Amino acid sequence: MSQSTQLTDTGQLKHFLSIDGLSKALLTEILDTAESFIEVGERKIRKVPLLRGKTVVNLFFEASTRTRSTFELAAKRLSADVLNLNISTSATSKGESLSDTLLNLEAMASDMFIVRHSQSGAPHFIAESVTPGVGIINAGDGWHAHPTQAMLDMLTIRQNKGTFDGLRVAIIGDIMHSRVARSQIQALNTLGASEVRIIAPSTLLPPEVESLGVNVYHQLHSGLNDIDVVIMLRLQRERMQGALLPSEQEYFQQYGLTQEALANAKPDAIVMHPGPINRGVEIESAVADGTQSVILDQVTNGIAVRMAVMSMAMSGQTQERNALTQGA
Amino acid sequence: MSQSTQLTDTGQLKHFLSIDGLSKALLTEILDTAESFIEVGERKIRKVPLLRGKTVVNLFFEASTRTRSTFELAAKRLSADVLNLNISTSATSKGESLSDTLLNLEAMASDMFIVRHSQSGAPHFIAESVTPGVGIINAGDGWHAHPTQAMLDMLTIRQNKGTFDGLRVAIIGDIMHSRVARSQIQALNTLGASEVRIIAPSTLLPPEVESLGVNVYHQLHSGLNDIDVVIMLRLQRERMQGALLPSEQEYFQQYGLTQEALANAKPDAIVMHPGPINRGVEIESAVADGTQSVILDQVTNGIAVRMAVMSMAMSGQTQERNALTQGA
Amino acid sequence: MSQSTQLTDTGQLKHFLSIDGLSKALLTEILDTAESFIEVGERKIRKVPLLRGKTVVNLFFEASTRTRSTFELAAKRLSADVLNLNISTSATSKGESLSDTLLNLEAMASDMFIVRHSQSGAPHFIAESVTPGVGIINAGDGWHAHPTQAMLDMLTIRQNKGTFDGLRVAIIGDIMHSRVARSQIQALNTLGASEVRIIAPSTLLPPEVESLGVNVYHQLHSGLNDIDVVIMLRLQRERMQGALLPSEQEYFQQYGLTQEALANAKPDAIVMHPGPINRGVEIESAVADGTQSVILDQVTNGIAVRMAVMSMAMSGQTQERNALTQGA
Repeated sequence: MSQSTQLTDTGQLKHFLSIDGLSKALLTEILDTAESFIEVGERKIRKVPLLRGKTVVNLFFEASTRTRSTFELAAKRLSADVLNLNISTSATSKGESLSDTLLNLEAMASDMFIVRHSQSGAPHFIAESVTPGVGIINAGDGWHAHPTQAMLDMLTIRQNKGTFDGLRVAIIGDIMHSRVARSQIQALNTLGASEVRIIAPSTLLPPEVESLGVNVYHQLHSGLNDIDVVIMLRLQRERMQGALLPSEQEYFQQYGLTQEALANAKPDAIVMHPGPINRGVEIESAVADGTQSVILDQVTNGIAVRMAVMSMAMSGQTQERNALTQGA
Repeated sequence: MSQSTQLTDTGQLKHFLSIDGLSKALLTEILDTAESFIEVGERKIRKVPLLRGKTVVNLFFEASTRTRSTFELAAKRLSADVLNLNISTSATSKGESLSDTLLNLEAMASDMFIVRHSQSGAPHFIAESVTPGVGIINAGDGWHAHPTQAMLDMLTIRQNKGTFDGLRVAIIGDIMHSRVARSQIQALNTLGASEVRIIAPSTLLPPEVESLGVNVYHQLHSGLNDIDVVIMLRLQRERMQGALLPSEQEYFQQYGLTQEALANAKPDAIVMHPGPINRGVEIESAVADGTQSVILDQVTNGIAVRMAVMSMAMSGQTQERNALTQGA
Repeated sequence: MSQSTQLTDTGQLKHFLSIDGLSKALLTEILDTAESFIEVGERKIRKVPLLRGKTVVNLFFEASTRTRSTFELAAKRLSADVLNLNISTSATSKGESLSDTLLNLEAMASDMFIVRHSQSGAPHFIAESVTPGVGIINAGDGWHAHPTQAMLDMLTIRQNKGTFDGLRVAIIGDIMHSRVARSQIQALNTLGASEVRIIAPSTLLPPEVESLGVNVYHQLHSGLNDIDVVIMLRLQRERMQGALLPSEQEYFQQYGLTQEALANAKPDAIVMHPGPINRGVEIESAVADGTQSVILDQVTNGIAVRMAVMSMAMSGQTQERNALTQGA
């Protein structure tokens, strides 16, 4: 999978499934394109006609109003028509297989699927099993990847720090179950950050975590030393029921980002969080709402990044189709 | 709240939260603007480009297909993009606070929220807690207000009676639990109706009802004497379970609008109802479908009035933003 | 009902409720119009402005994501605004009657209702009870009719066979409960097929089935002799619980379309299925995915046929309204 699945023969994006296998140049192109769409969001007329007449299908096998809404807004700002399909309540419940559902959607002449699925790898499977001409954007699959979230985080870092060179970034929380963390680590390493640190209890680390290219810390205060960017993960409260974590109070005491803890990072460190925030669980309100927080910039950047990957992948699809037509 | 929250410094509408505090001139401007949109609904092409490129979010914390649909239609006729969010099933269920949800929505660069909430005052809270640039339209909050419903009723009255001067209007039913009645009474008194009468059993009257500027009647027949406009309220059957009302039959006998009862009003009196109608409970079919009924005109006017307040509030937001930019 | 309800005085389509009563010329016009929209689906910009400024309401009293999606896509490709209403969860649950709901929708100045209902005849009732100017498209009513499904099947047959003259068509499965089969039989007979065969166990045949203009077979192999077009029906697994059918295994053994069974039809026979497919129940995967299968063409044709009937009915409505205006 990876490079050959996501890219055209000439190296353009045609799906957006994973950060894995994408070059620094391509990630930078995504950020530059997104930057140009930020300006669109500030205009009086917020639409550009790049996807006019195209149909984008939100194919959510796992409910997520927030992510679905940002993709819907992004698609509409590109002038696409949007179809929302909550697949769990649809044809699959009539006993139809996933690939039959997809073939049907494709026969409806849709141009792009935004796929969210609880199974790792589902968007790759879809990208490989649908015919040419339909771009697939991964909107989160299992514990595997959430590449648009990672790229909106990268855009937010670049806006605030100018460059990734020399940056030390700490990711704090439940790394094991986080598709966001996996994508962030790959993006930061590809874009040239000096160091990616993971700060978490050992029960929330994936096996062989160092192989991801990170340094592991178990103490919040020492882990934040010299840090330029603090990325908090959302604590999945469901996991509390299991034996992985003792209690919310205890977690907050050890890993909750307070102003006191943040004082260990560089004075101009920025604080990020993918939302929704559990105030008082993984982050203190004074920090979430403080001057170092760029959490709401992340949301704004989310629309721009999604516009960027959608328009780039659509352009890659078109290019490939034209190449096929000429080759035939 | 009221005037300072809803209006710009130069007295233009920038939110539409409540009739309370709005001048006769402003209410008349809403009616005149709505009148001009009636014509749009009759055109072959029903769209006007006033909100092109703007994003309107239907933020419904309380389900209402009917109200949501009319706002969605109104927004689309103004060429806006519409995002429907049923918040009860969304992020708040993940433990996110209302103000965090709103900050996120606002960071998505939405231009207007249509808010329905079971708590009185929620739209005011939202209008005061979101940053400049996002207009809030109250689509019904608790027992407090439903100002677009009141204004579509006013438009229907003006279309049929020409003026409010000298008009005697009766509102019949469960006043205590009715946000519609509160908004109607304020609008009628502001627009200069001669008399607003309330006809209801004492168990369905709010405390200190006379302070609202109404005359109270407990008998339907005597209450309808000399009346020009009869406004029925919808009986919430849920309330029957409590001790507030004896039975549907008994209620209909005392307060149900029959042709016989209607004969006590002026011969050219019009009959209104916000829908959905409980036939045989608060109104007889012969009246609901009779020549004096203007119930379906109310629905048509609902689209036009919602187009009016949305376009006026958007224009107020733009004006305020321009003023801020020049002042900065 | 039938002709007088569906057609204008000059014989143009103004609703699309049933194949029954429509002429060969009109069905051919639908197919020709759909053919022209196939080309739209293949364009870079897939939209045509035929329904610009019009509001199409998906009025689904019975959930069906698949059918709703194809109508939504078709309407958007015609540039209409689409409002999705799931009526089961809406006003009717507040005790409002169907006709009150419809009057309200009509007062919202909608132009077309796409109606799906579990009661046979509901779309006819709606067509007859709403005022002029609102076109009704039947998207499936009870066991009665599913005329757009039948027409997309006819388009698929014509694309593959060129003509209906001399064609022998077999419809296989649960005829009794199938609104699709009823509409297909009427369309095939009207368009001039040589023979329509029904292949089913006697427990799944409607009473007086021969009066529909079909030949009945109970054996799959002999029934497929000399057949040009094989139309499979979807087996409703719910019916298995009753005494109508012994078991899935037994049904598949007798009526499941295998490659071996298909060998009894003509060598160039095509295989159709409305979807979703129950693989291994009514059809073998080797056949569903084989070279004779045109199942995915049916989906593509579904969009085009729905665009055709929507644009034709809208044009009929406009013509009738103009005639009324001039006559008045």
